[in-house]
Amino acid sequence: MEGQHQRRSSIAAIAAERPNLASIDPSMLDRLPAYSATLFEAKTQRRLTFEQIAEALGRSEVAVAALFYGQARATPEDAARLAQLLGLSAESPLASQMVGFPDRGRAGPMPPVEPLIYRLYEIVQNYGYAFKAVMNEKFGDGIMSAICFKSTVEKEVDETGAPWVVITLKGKW
Amino acid sequence: MEGQHQRRSSIAAIAAERPNLASIDPSMLDRLPAYSATLFEAKTQRRLTFEQIAEALGRSEVAVAALFYGQARATPEDAARLAQLLGLSAESPLASQMVGFPDRGRAGPMPPVEPLIYRLYEIVQNYGYAFKAVMNEKFGDGIMSAICFKSTVEKEVDETGAPWVVITLKGKW
Amino acid sequence: MEGQHQRRSSIAAIAAERPNLASIDPSMLDRLPAYSATLFEAKTQRRLTFEQIAEALGRSEVAVAALFYGQARATPEDAARLAQLLGLSAESPLASQMVGFPDRGRAGPMPPVEPLIYRLYEIVQNYGYAFKAVMNEKFGDGIMSAICFKSTVEKEVDETGAPWVVITLKGKW
Amino acid sequence: MEGQHQRRSSIAAIAAERPNLASIDPSMLDRLPAYSATLFEAKTQRRLTFEQIAEALGRSEVAVAALFYGQARATPEDAARLAQLLGLSAESPLASQMVGFPDRGRAGPMPPVEPLIYRLYEIVQNYGYAFKAVMNEKFGDGIMSAICFKSTVEKEVDETGAPWVVITLKGKW
Amino acid sequence: MEGQHQRRSSIAAIAAERPNLASIDPSMLDRLPAYSATLFEAKTQRRLTFEQIAEALGRSEVAVAALFYGQARATPEDAARLAQLLGLSAESPLASQMVGFPDRGRAGPMPPVEPLIYRLYEIVQNYGYAFKAVMNEKFGDGIMSAICFKSTVEKEVDETGAPWVVITLKGKW
Amino acid sequence: MEGQHQRRSSIAAIAAERPNLASIDPSMLDRLPAYSATLFEAKTQRRLTFEQIAEALGRSEVAVAALFYGQARATPEDAARLAQLLGLSAESPLASQMVGFPDRGRAGPMPPVEPLIYRLYEIVQNYGYAFKAVMNEKFGDGIMSAICFKSTVEKEVDETGAPWVVITLKGKW
Amino acid sequence: MEGQHQRRSSIAAIAAERPNLASIDPSMLDRLPAYSATLFEAKTQRRLTFEQIAEALGRSEVAVAALFYGQARATPEDAARLAQLLGLSAESPLASQMVGFPDRGRAGPMPPVEPLIYRLYEIVQNYGYAFKAVMNEKFGDGIMSAICFKSTVEKEVDETGAPWVVITLKGKW
Amino acid sequence: MEGQHQRRSSIAAIAAERPNLASIDPSMLDRLPAYSATLFEAKTQRRLTFEQIAEALGRSEVAVAALFYGQARATPEDAARLAQLLGLSAESPLASQMVGFPDRGRAGPMPPVEPLIYRLYEIVQNYGYAFKAVMNEKFGDGIMSAICFKSTVEKEVDETGAPWVVITLKGKW
Amino acid sequence: MEGQHQRRSSIAAIAAERPNLASIDPSMLDRLPAYSATLFEAKTQRRLTFEQIAEALGRSEVAVAALFYGQARATPEDAARLAQLLGLSAESPLASQMVGFPDRGRAGPMPPVEPLIYRLYEIVQNYGYAFKAVMNEKFGDGIMSAICFKSTVEKEVDETGAPWVVITLKGKW
Amino acid sequence: MEGQHQRRSSIAAIAAERPNLASIDPSMLDRLPAYSATLFEAKTQRRLTFEQIAEALGRSEVAVAALFYGQARATPEDAARLAQLLGLSAESPLASQMVGFPDRGRAGPMPPVEPLIYRLYEIVQNYGYAFKAVMNEKFGDGIMSAICFKSTVEKEVDETGAPWVVITLKGKW
Repeated sequence: MEGQHQRRSSIAAIAAERPNLASIDPSMLDRLPAYSATLFEAKTQRRLTFEQIAEALGRSEVAVAALFYGQARATPEDAARLAQLLGLSAESPLASQMVGFPDRGRAGPMPPVEPLIYRLYEIVQNYGYAFKAVMNEKFGDGIMSAICFKSTVEKEVDETGAPWVVITLKGKW
Repeated sequence: MEGQHQRRSSIAAIAAERPNLASIDPSMLDRLPAYSATLFEAKTQRRLTFEQIAEALGRSEVAVAALFYGQARATPEDAARLAQLLGLSAESPLASQMVGFPDRGRAGPMPPVEPLIYRLYEIVQNYGYAFKAVMNEKFGDGIMSAICFKSTVEKEVDETGAPWVVITLKGKW
Repeated sequence: MEGQHQRRSSIAAIAAERPNLASIDPSMLDRLPAYSATLFEAKTQRRLTFEQIAEALGRSEVAVAALFYGQARATPEDAARLAQLLGLSAESPLASQMVGFPDRGRAGPMPPVEPLIYRLYEIVQNYGYAFKAVMNEKFGDGIMSAICFKSTVEKEVDETGAPWVVITLKGKW
Repeated sequence: MEGQHQRRSSIAAIAAERPNLASIDPSMLDRLPAYSATLFEAKTQRRLTFEQIAEALGRSEVAVAALFYGQARATPEDAARLAQLLGLSAESPLASQMVGFPDRGRAGPMPPVEPLIYRLYEIVQNYGYAFKAVMNEKFGDGIMSAICFKSTVEKEVDETGAPWVVITLKGKW
Repeated sequence: MEGQHQRRSSIAAIAAERPNLASIDPSMLDRLPAYSATLFEAKTQRRLTFEQIAEALGRSEVAVAALFYGQARATPEDAARLAQLLGLSAESPLASQMVGFPDRGRAGPMPPVEPLIYRLYEIVQNYGYAFKAVMNEKFGDGIMSAICFKSTVEKEVDETGAPWVVITLKGKW
Repeated sequence: MEGQHQRRSSIAAIAAERPNLASIDPSMLDRLPAYSATLFEAKTQRRLTFEQIAEALGRSEVAVAALFYGQARATPEDAARLAQLLGLSAESPLASQMVGFPDRGRAGPMPPVEPLIYRLYEIVQNYGYAFKAVMNEKFGDGIMSAICFKSTVEKEVDETGAPWVVITLKGKW
Repeated sequence: MEGQHQRRSSIAAIAAERPNLASIDPSMLDRLPAYSATLFEAKTQRRLTFEQIAEALGRSEVAVAALFYGQARATPEDAARLAQLLGLSAESPLASQMVGFPDRGRAGPMPPVEPLIYRLYEIVQNYGYAFKAVMNEKFGDGIMSAICFKSTVEKEVDETGAPWVVITLKGKW
Repeated sequence: MEGQHQRRSSIAAIAAERPNLASIDPSMLDRLPAYSATLFEAKTQRRLTFEQIAEALGRSEVAVAALFYGQARATPEDAARLAQLLGLSAESPLASQMVGFPDRGRAGPMPPVEPLIYRLYEIVQNYGYAFKAVMNEKFGDGIMSAICFKSTVEKEVDETGAPWVVITLKGKW
Repeated sequence: MEGQHQRRSSIAAIAAERPNLASIDPSMLDRLPAYSATLFEAKTQRRLTFEQIAEALGRSEVAVAALFYGQARATPEDAARLAQLLGLSAESPLASQMVGFPDRGRAGPMPPVEPLIYRLYEIVQNYGYAFKAVMNEKFGDGIMSAICFKSTVEKEVDETGAPWVVITLKGKW
Repeated sequence: MEGQHQRRSSIAAIAAERPNLASIDPSMLDRLPAYSATLFEAKTQRRLTFEQIAEALGRSEVAVAALFYGQARATPEDAARLAQLLGLSAESPLASQMVGFPDRGRAGPMPPVEPLIYRLYEIVQNYGYAFKAVMNEKFGDGIMSAICFKSTVEKEVDETGAPWVVITLKGKW
């Protein structure tokens, strides 16, 4: 009886310590660069959120998460700070891999099967031409860069207490 | 010689009158609801931008453009104001079509072949899991609505004078 | 001024008369049997909901809507009642077309691009194996028929006043 | 002769003990999160049905099965109860994996090749627009959530003794 | 009242005269050769089943239906008999079209969206390797012709009164 | 010289002993359930044809082959007889796996790349609508079950000595 | 009675006059250049085979057929001879269209649904790497041109009287 | 310096010994049957060309290469000769695997990504209907077998010294 | 006889006047904007090459051809000069359409079926990662713009007299 | 504190030594030939750029990178020089693998998901027909070889200091 009670408690304790901590399932690793496993593992062990890492690196949370998923290149500065923060050996091949050139776009299938990511895809599917028409009227013919690009995710709470996600996509024209 | 000069001028005049006015090519009409052709034609004839229409309807530019592309439903209010603004007969079947239920998602192929829209798709492809991880850490497990959703497109100019597009996606969690 | 006011009123009037009346956009007709256009047009002119038609035919709303979209076969009884209700000539080729054998499955693309229908698809994608496992434990090896099949859509309101859709799928094992 | 008889009996005995117990074939594991293998193995060894587990957790059978297939997130409560019920170590990485954020939608290919799951897909393909039309008439423009969503599977027997599956899908509008 | 009664009767009468008569919906015609429309129209007007036509031509029902759908070539004999049976002018271009070389395989999409045809596809998907293994053991390495090929569809009723479809596929090895 | 002669003979001897024995290449195993490898290996070692196994189990050859490919569920009776016939331990996990619920449809890609299986696919592609039309005229609207379904493969020799494959597909309507 | 007899005869007569004359079904025309319809129509009216046309033009049958299907460019010589042979006006836009640059590759879908063409596709699928290996050993690394390319189709009859098709593909290395 | 010179020489020596010897890269093995690796390895070690093996077996080079890629079945004679020629143990499971029934069509993706094989695919895409039309005029309605089929690859040199590949495809009608 | 001779001559004359003049087949028009038909028609009637038009507009040939295919936007200057050069009315809707915002990417299917365009696609398929690696080493992480982009096509003749195409792609990093 | 400082420095040092050195992530290796891993590893260890290797081999950078990615065949000369430059044993199987015949086209998926490579793909998608039209007018009907083909990548800086990539594709006509 005791034992059972303790088991339940220890998991509740885990949950209390890390209410929302993005980690990575081993079955997803083959779509990611080799260093992703190491980074996520260290992040989980040290119970760090992307917000905390972003603050330490002086970059946005989205940029840091993109780096973990192999979609962005770490500067040597980033790599050094990450190694220190996550307790990784600076001499490990990992550090030099992170400053390599990313082979982007392989993190998941398209169309996305993950519902949350599908919603973003659906926005492009439904509003794509509306975005284009408004941009064309505002900027003329041209294109918004998806590379020279910054992004943030913020939380807003409306008057009824309901939370809203606010994603900002900022790309050079 | 005169004639030539005049021709050139008249086109230059057209260009001067409508520097950036989103219209629709006939070859795209079979992907859109029947009323899109009428709306775009009237918009072109009256030389109205989405910004002007949005102001008249009290909605965002993106929402108005989405309505023109058949991705959003007009309220009876919207329909009445649009009919007035564009000089359409309120008794025409168009009005009742606009307040019908949209069959969304058909405006263009996926993956997009239009480069500007592809850039948005690429953002989802590359940053999808990064967005998910950050949202999960900020909001827990859940989803951002692509339906209970608002969006704006703004223009910013940086210190070097270069223009940036700022897209804001705001969806209920 | 008068005129404008009237215009707005007449559309508001239309909206008042038909708050929620499913119709069909002409651009969708090539995916449907030839009689769909006629049925939907008559339904719109007579301002009938599927609920009203279902009551008159003694069938479920989903079954009637499926018949309009060419996914179900009308019995001669159904055809006769529909012809009467919608004011169609019983001698028209339409009547005999409706009692033909439907060429099912062409109403829209798969995966669905329409967000509402995509949500149903997503349920199959995410919960498919969960449904299978539970059915196998309850019924043994076998299959649920999608043909010998009934379905209803109901509206429920929870204690907070929020509406819920309740879809019931009932298939022979 | 004896030996043969016994062999047959022992398998018959197995069958008698577990008439219908959903398990998982090793060849399917690479589509599932790492903890699925452990959960299913323990479920098989303890000869527990989803019905029994659902009762112990106070959740629906579909929700529990979805959790086993990595499509739903366990609450810390769920994780603690599951660990106890299945005899898993609460300190194992499994527990913390189960309360991670699921990477949904990878359990099987779409269109489904499994006939039972295909039947559900076929319902969406054939009746998708019928569902949409009826929902639009009942609720107006909008969408049924596939995330804020509950589901049950029940067994009914009609007057001729034939079994019917009744799936209820309940989603917030 | 009279009128209504009559309307219902006339459709019921139609149904009585043609309980099961395969026809073709106009929306399907663009997937078929030009003569299909004429043949099906004449078949419907004369209320002929494929069984009756097959008897008149001395061929199997499946072969005749395949000819109507443009999947088989009519012999001059077939064409002459069909013209006579369906009241078509023998000098019409139709006759010479029917004895042309069919451009097979375009009657519908693959995978099939029509549920009845999907069931046949599913048999190939699930049992394909089982058929191959049994054929290889019976015939050695080789192939069953899908061209030098005959097929019948028969109806059987089992002891409980339930109907069964029996399809026989006979191909040269 | 002797040696060479003997080598040739021993292979010829193998061929003489097993003129036509379906086996399975290791490269195909990842598409099949875990027990398929064991069953095929034992079948090869004991030099049993599906005909011999089918006779021992009292089932059709196609059903037995489908079981080997993981497309059908073994009854406990089947499992016990197979274990005895193939010399497998009845206590092995294999036995309980075989009476699990199959995850059907994964044995090979669709469209099939194997020419023999492609021929069956081609029959569905070319004759699908012909089968449907004939079935509809014979049975009315409905569907042939691909689950409540039996199948045989027979060999016929015509008057010129040429072999024909006769596949019979029998499904409940 | 007389009439019937005559009808049958006239079709038989047609068949006798043109035992094997490739024509084109109207439903295929949208995949072909505009002049294909005219060429095939004239060929049918004059009852010319590709063999006869090839002889008149001094080119291979395959080349002529490819020209009719819009896959090859006519030289002005070819165009002039074809116009004369088929009785076309040399001033018609057709002549200049034929000497335009073909937009190749649109004649049919890939993978082919036409069984005869699928057989050629299957040869590439099954023997592709075998051809490559043999060519590499004979020619070294390189490629066989599909543009600087000639092809013939011949008929051979073996000792048992069975016909064989012999296709020769000759491409510059 | 010496060392360097020797290194270069030894590789040049290798090249001299085997100017054109088709081998197989390990990354391709998972698309091929298990015995392909062994056959290719032995072929490379003994420095045999397909021409030499074909001569020893009395079959065409294409047939032998197809056998190496798992697209054709070895006769027991072939297997015995190959075992002798390549120094394989006749008792190894390899021999019995080679006389098994091939699971054809998996050697590479379609459409081919290998440029040399793509050229053959392109010939089918561009000339498919031309081949069909010429065959239909020469043979009537029917099909060329891709199974009862022989093929050769020859080298021709034209008057300018340029090499041409001549592929002959000979299939029973 | 005379007539024949003249016919041949007149076509030869056409060919002499326009040795190489890119035009457009009507069957391709539905993939292009509405004004493409008019532009190509006028270009053909006036027998103008892209080189001549490019010179008149002061732009590269590739840019002008892209404009004709609807992939680039005409400046008002371009539109005025084109209208003059091609004899189009400056007041026609065409002029304003050309200065609209192009809906790019629809000119043809991907992967390309046209062999010439496929070769360019194949270069991307085969050399894509090689280009990326070299660019990354030369420029660091980043991207080459496909929008802020210029291109030319030149002809070179090597010492053996063989012509070479030289395509230059110049994009901002 | 010291330690941290050093860590940061050592990574900065790495970055300083290799500002831009293309390497390969292990997760990409299964798309490449077996020798790619060895080549890239040696290149990284010796800190060689493709420019340096190209100079040593007397070939273009693109050609060398293509060789590393398995898209080109090494001459024995190339192999010998590479072995020397990278310190590989000339007797290793690697050397003989490199002079084998490449199985081209497998380096990445199409359409490309890597943004930099997608830009090249987009150029083909958007400008494909423009390139074809200009080439046809310059060269007549024909094709540009993608095999008998050379390519360079150069860096240019414009008057504003902005870098431009200049890719030259030169293929035999």
